[in-house]
Amino acid sequence: MLMEGYVSTSVAARHQTLTGDVALTASNRFDRWVLKRIQGTVATAPVRFALWDGFAVPLDLASPVATIVFKNRRALVSWAWDSELNFGETYMAGTVDVCGDLGAMLEAVYRAWTKKPNIRPGSLRQPRNTVGAARANVHHHYDLGNEFYRLWLDREMVYTCAYFPTADCTLEAAQVAKMNLVCRKLRLKPGERVVEAGSGWGALAMFMAQKYGVSVRAFNVSAEQVAYARARVKERGLADRVEFVEDDYRNIRGEYDAFVSIGMLEHVGLAEYPQFGKSMDRSLARHGRGLLHFIGRNEPAPLNRWIRKRIFPGAYPPALREVFEHVTEPHGFSILDVENLRLHYAKTLEHWRARFAQHADEARAMFDEHFQRAWSLYLAGSQAAFATGSMQLFQIVFARGDSNAIPWTRRSVG
Amino acid sequence: MLMEGYVSTSVAARHQTLTGDVALTASNRFDRWVLKRIQGTVATAPVRFALWDGFAVPLDLASPVATIVFKNRRALVSWAWDSELNFGETYMAGTVDVCGDLGAMLEAVYRAWTKKPNIRPGSLRQPRNTVGAARANVHHHYDLGNEFYRLWLDREMVYTCAYFPTADCTLEAAQVAKMNLVCRKLRLKPGERVVEAGSGWGALAMFMAQKYGVSVRAFNVSAEQVAYARARVKERGLADRVEFVEDDYRNIRGEYDAFVSIGMLEHVGLAEYPQFGKSMDRSLARHGRGLLHFIGRNEPAPLNRWIRKRIFPGAYPPALREVFEHVTEPHGFSILDVENLRLHYAKTLEHWRARFAQHADEARAMFDEHFQRAWSLYLAGSQAAFATGSMQLFQIVFARGDSNAIPWTRRSVG
Repeated sequence: MLMEGYVSTSVAARHQTLTGDVALTASNRFDRWVLKRIQGTVATAPVRFALWDGFAVPLDLASPVATIVFKNRRALVSWAWDSELNFGETYMAGTVDVCGDLGAMLEAVYRAWTKKPNIRPGSLRQPRNTVGAARANVHHHYDLGNEFYRLWLDREMVYTCAYFPTADCTLEAAQVAKMNLVCRKLRLKPGERVVEAGSGWGALAMFMAQKYGVSVRAFNVSAEQVAYARARVKERGLADRVEFVEDDYRNIRGEYDAFVSIGMLEHVGLAEYPQFGKSMDRSLARHGRGLLHFIGRNEPAPLNRWIRKRIFPGAYPPALREVFEHVTEPHGFSILDVENLRLHYAKTLEHWRARFAQHADEARAMFDEHFQRAWSLYLAGSQAAFATGSMQLFQIVFARGDSNAIPWTRRSVG
Repeated sequence: MLMEGYVSTSVAARHQTLTGDVALTASNRFDRWVLKRIQGTVATAPVRFALWDGFAVPLDLASPVATIVFKNRRALVSWAWDSELNFGETYMAGTVDVCGDLGAMLEAVYRAWTKKPNIRPGSLRQPRNTVGAARANVHHHYDLGNEFYRLWLDREMVYTCAYFPTADCTLEAAQVAKMNLVCRKLRLKPGERVVEAGSGWGALAMFMAQKYGVSVRAFNVSAEQVAYARARVKERGLADRVEFVEDDYRNIRGEYDAFVSIGMLEHVGLAEYPQFGKSMDRSLARHGRGLLHFIGRNEPAPLNRWIRKRIFPGAYPPALREVFEHVTEPHGFSILDVENLRLHYAKTLEHWRARFAQHADEARAMFDEHFQRAWSLYLAGSQAAFATGSMQLFQIVFARGDSNAIPWTRRSVG
């Protein structure tokens, strides 16, 4: 039997002051029953759930990491209806608030989830990311304005998982370490030709050219990112060796010694994996090798619907076997190496969140309160997902199946 | 148009003297047509094919690595009928011989194969390796007598892929390096409990106890191997920390900090993967981690039928995704690391073949000429398969999906 009852009126009052949207009516038996049902889905989490009038459950928590407060009945009922979607929707709107540590609360909830998310038949099927849809999806997220991303990313604007040689390394150093790791895994040699699928603000392409002496063609459909990258490449005098092409990965042409794609495969979508594999196959020389770095899963599962709706339309983090079956196997590629860096993504997100929080007012000013809350939740939820093992970060290295131009051991990677 | 004609009578005569079973009739048009068809399946290989009377194709090879000689019509027709099976059968029987370098010929043939092996519907389905069948399969191969394996394995009798820090390392040192690599990937700490599924002659179990201070329970259904391992463990005074259990992996009980299986999964068979995964899940502590080392493929394909018939009944080298789908995913295990060591297996087999060739007379005396030829072919064919990328050697490391007792980087493995 759960302890239930009212939290101190001061706490309840504080909750009510967070937005103007206060429900003045007292909660009824139905409200309380729904609240207890919701709490039951994460029964072992040290998290308290409260209603607008202070009714809360469970009261007998030694040290709750946070209290989730429903500000009105509509928010409460929306969770009963579809918590996967409406947790995000109500938090973003401010009709649900979290008093306490948002990140710790999300980690606790991830750990306590008693049932797997509903994998309904067909829920893995998504609208196809055609060339047009892919461009729109990318625009939704990556064209929010370079000024926005500059607020909280590192100097080089690397918006993918970093690699922390030690946990106390700075974000700046960890992004450089990640780029070095990728280049060493690819065993880049001066004068080689590299194609990059999805190049963000161009940091890796420029790094490869500058530090490893290769030439790079980088494909990206985000107009804002390409414009930014082109300006930087000119500033740095690398324009003869780095070309940013504003085009889809499906239109990659030419022959290259290495194929690299960092944080892009999760936007491709399962249905387009054969196309992605064909691009790799078309572009790699006989002795070529490739590296894919992507957010994945231990087993196939759909991405959270709120994230798909508000943050990453068209995204799907795959299980390794889905990548092998649909991307590498059809072309006889051989998997040489897989590394799971999920704790590094949790650490990366910890840095991003801290910087984002420092600049919350600026983010609010650039967009609005809802946007700022949505992005806080997305970053905190992502950190919790990587920290608890709900999401993975895989780096895979491959070569053609009949190529013996493969490393003898890992030692050269260091 | 291929050059065809007769090879010098001295070559033909030499071929004919290899066995007593000489066909004295001259070849006819049909024989030559069949020969050319067979040659056409590996048209780009620098390999010559000859009939019993010296007729050969192609004659215009700058430097053939070998000539494959059919001693009689029955052998020739058996290849047309089923070359996958009858290459091995006729070579073993001596009705086909290879003049030149057997290993180089096999590599050339693997590289030149113009069509993929026939994956007939259902060809991936095999008789189930029930507890009884598994024991019989293991008995067929591993109970040939410890004296036989002592002829050509390393001192510690390690009959799995070694790890050569440098290519010129000795086999003995490379087997020790492999065991160290496995222990470091598992991050074994003194006092921990390890369970091993399939333990061969016990080398790894004893090594882990002696060098890493762990206690080991090792399961194996080969009576000869277990008897040998128990004698060694007593000699070395390790009996208090290493227990060899003559039982099936399905009967593993108890809780362990690490699960390790080296060169065993390829004998389990797809249909039993769920059982294998259950054994892992049952035995691993919450913070536990596991390592599987197995022969695999880039994509699902049946094992050569001759190898299954004569060498490894019940064996199946899986694609990575088959292991993930049926072994690790159902229990929420997370893949932390994959390494492909196929070139190390080619090097290991090079050592084994050289030693086996040195002791060919002893092998013949222990068994017979057919056995010695069959094993020469199996070892040479395996080396060719790993060298050309037709087979892979995977080491995968996993942990429970919600465990954060995972390595921060690979550096500690070295």
